[in-house]
Amino acid sequence: MKRIAILGSTGSIGQQTLDVIGAFPDRFRIAAVAGGDNSDLLAKQVAQFQPKMVYSAKALDTHSPAESISMEEIAAHPDIDLVVIATSGKAGLKPTLAAIRAGKRIALANKEVLVLAGEIITSEAKQYGAQILPIDSEHSAIWQCLHGEQSQPARIILTASGGPFYGQPPEQLTKVIPEEALSHPTWKMGKKVTIDSATLMNKGLEAIEAHWLFSIPFDHIEIIIHRQSIVHSFVEFTDGSTKAQLSLPDMRLPIQYALSYPERLPNPHLPHLDLTKVKALTFEPADPGQFPCLKLALQAGKDGGTYPAVLSAADEVAVHLFLAGKARFTDIAEVIAQTIALHHPVANPSLEEILAADAWARQTAKDIAKRNITC
Amino acid sequence: MKRIAILGSTGSIGQQTLDVIGAFPDRFRIAAVAGGDNSDLLAKQVAQFQPKMVYSAKALDTHSPAESISMEEIAAHPDIDLVVIATSGKAGLKPTLAAIRAGKRIALANKEVLVLAGEIITSEAKQYGAQILPIDSEHSAIWQCLHGEQSQPARIILTASGGPFYGQPPEQLTKVIPEEALSHPTWKMGKKVTIDSATLMNKGLEAIEAHWLFSIPFDHIEIIIHRQSIVHSFVEFTDGSTKAQLSLPDMRLPIQYALSYPERLPNPHLPHLDLTKVKALTFEPADPGQFPCLKLALQAGKDGGTYPAVLSAADEVAVHLFLAGKARFTDIAEVIAQTIALHHPVANPSLEEILAADAWARQTAKDIAKRNITC
Repeated sequence: MKRIAILGSTGSIGQQTLDVIGAFPDRFRIAAVAGGDNSDLLAKQVAQFQPKMVYSAKALDTHSPAESISMEEIAAHPDIDLVVIATSGKAGLKPTLAAIRAGKRIALANKEVLVLAGEIITSEAKQYGAQILPIDSEHSAIWQCLHGEQSQPARIILTASGGPFYGQPPEQLTKVIPEEALSHPTWKMGKKVTIDSATLMNKGLEAIEAHWLFSIPFDHIEIIIHRQSIVHSFVEFTDGSTKAQLSLPDMRLPIQYALSYPERLPNPHLPHLDLTKVKALTFEPADPGQFPCLKLALQAGKDGGTYPAVLSAADEVAVHLFLAGKARFTDIAEVIAQTIALHHPVANPSLEEILAADAWARQTAKDIAKRNITC
Repeated sequence: MKRIAILGSTGSIGQQTLDVIGAFPDRFRIAAVAGGDNSDLLAKQVAQFQPKMVYSAKALDTHSPAESISMEEIAAHPDIDLVVIATSGKAGLKPTLAAIRAGKRIALANKEVLVLAGEIITSEAKQYGAQILPIDSEHSAIWQCLHGEQSQPARIILTASGGPFYGQPPEQLTKVIPEEALSHPTWKMGKKVTIDSATLMNKGLEAIEAHWLFSIPFDHIEIIIHRQSIVHSFVEFTDGSTKAQLSLPDMRLPIQYALSYPERLPNPHLPHLDLTKVKALTFEPADPGQFPCLKLALQAGKDGGTYPAVLSAADEVAVHLFLAGKARFTDIAEVIAQTIALHHPVANPSLEEILAADAWARQTAKDIAKRNITC
């Protein structure tokens, strides 16, 4: 019986993790949940799943006997076997480090943890013998393809759906409204990641994650457009053989694999892939000219230091402004590029330096947006 | 340094094995070669590669100091680390058993070994701790996808190119001439296997091989048409995740993987797959009505006993007659079906009973062909 903590249990990944766990009552127990703004849902989860521990960012209306402790205390608690980091933004950073230092197994869905602090996270995980298992569909695919292989891959090929505006001329993108950007062609996800998918920022952040998760240099990471979101990524080996992992787009599969690893569990609730119904899988090069956010992200990843933190923070600000109707879709890349241009980077930054860069980038991005945007 | 014996070194797989070995002079040494009718080429190979042992079915014009011994002696010789079974038809049966009983690692390209005697081969391999590594591209793909996995697959999906006549109405197939059937759309192979690919008999034989190699029931083996021959097969796991192995069609890759396993070796001579150049991978159901040979093979595999030996022998006779211009393309399935209909099967047959069924089927197929075919 694995005792599982879900940090960010009220978000999209958190809720789907609860769904997966519900299918295996003999295998997994929900030992802790933690939530942010949505305290109503968190209270319901606490009542339903009776965890031993809970963290809530807001006052919680519940009569549960669950112990109220911090996310870091949950992550390091001796009664937890696996910590699911399903928080968003930089919220997952400190709990992930706490879990690492307690030598836990960590199922990581919170992209920014590796984007902001990949070097610290991976070196501490090595030092403390903590395992980081990816929950993102692309990284889960790569991980599944690498499983059992002895040698480093020659190349990793991340697939990208291309988002709702793929193939549209750049000048049309200035008119995009949030509702259009939020209707993703294949995946149902949270708002921030859906916009990041439309700009392909998401794929750039995934490249940075892949770089750290699989110790692979950026020039061995390729991105291709695959509109159907069936192949979740490819790994090419040194002998020229390529492996792929496929499934219908459903986050419950990578979540379940991270929970059950190295086992695979039959789950009748997960959809079945019939390739003869899919008929064709298509692949096209991802043109960096069409996706300025992707280009910015890959450059920030290569430049390293505090650049990825600045990229991520500026993106969060810009996406927030776009969703609030205060910036155009095309302003997102512009705000990020201008913020990055003003940054004085720190190499091999400490956690404090990363968080300082994040705070600086948020303020700078807001200032830039205020000055430049006239919509 | 692995010392390698190649039985069937003058055939298509044998020659490509020599090509792969030539790329890694520090890794592999050709310790023995064995050939059949093409003694001129075998003599050249002996002169070029200076093996310690040689077997030739015909007198060999060479001044080499190589020791002349039988294929079974080569297969079991203490100076051999890995035996490549690249013979054709039932010729590989006894050498494979000799290699198994000597506990060797065996790279198996000769389909009939498992089709005829799958039960004997796999149970003896288990008993003697011999490893059987597949060289067929489809089985290599499945093996690569299963590598590192703990649990049995839920399903194996063999891909088939569909051959040169895919989609043509059955009535047109009566007029097919050997030259047309020998022009395979994606693979360059020997004549017998190319015709078997055109009838899809080859895919049926591969299903039988897969059944034995991976202990998978026939109703968990699916066949789909994939015209591009880029995905060499799929494995679906119990959690709904599917893995695939891909490469441009080149037999040197599965050959090399069997030689280097569990390592992968960089080989600049092998072609590189660029999915954005391939553009689309397509998948269609394989209609058993369109492929009578496939249907016969799957039924023979399920019925077991001596049926697969009878299927294989009758197919060899019928394909030979077709290539000699003495039978129509559509007669191949007819001759096999009639031979199978006359067979009195033996369950759990011994090697002798399998060889007796083979001999009976050859004679019966010839008789049927003589009576029925009027072209």
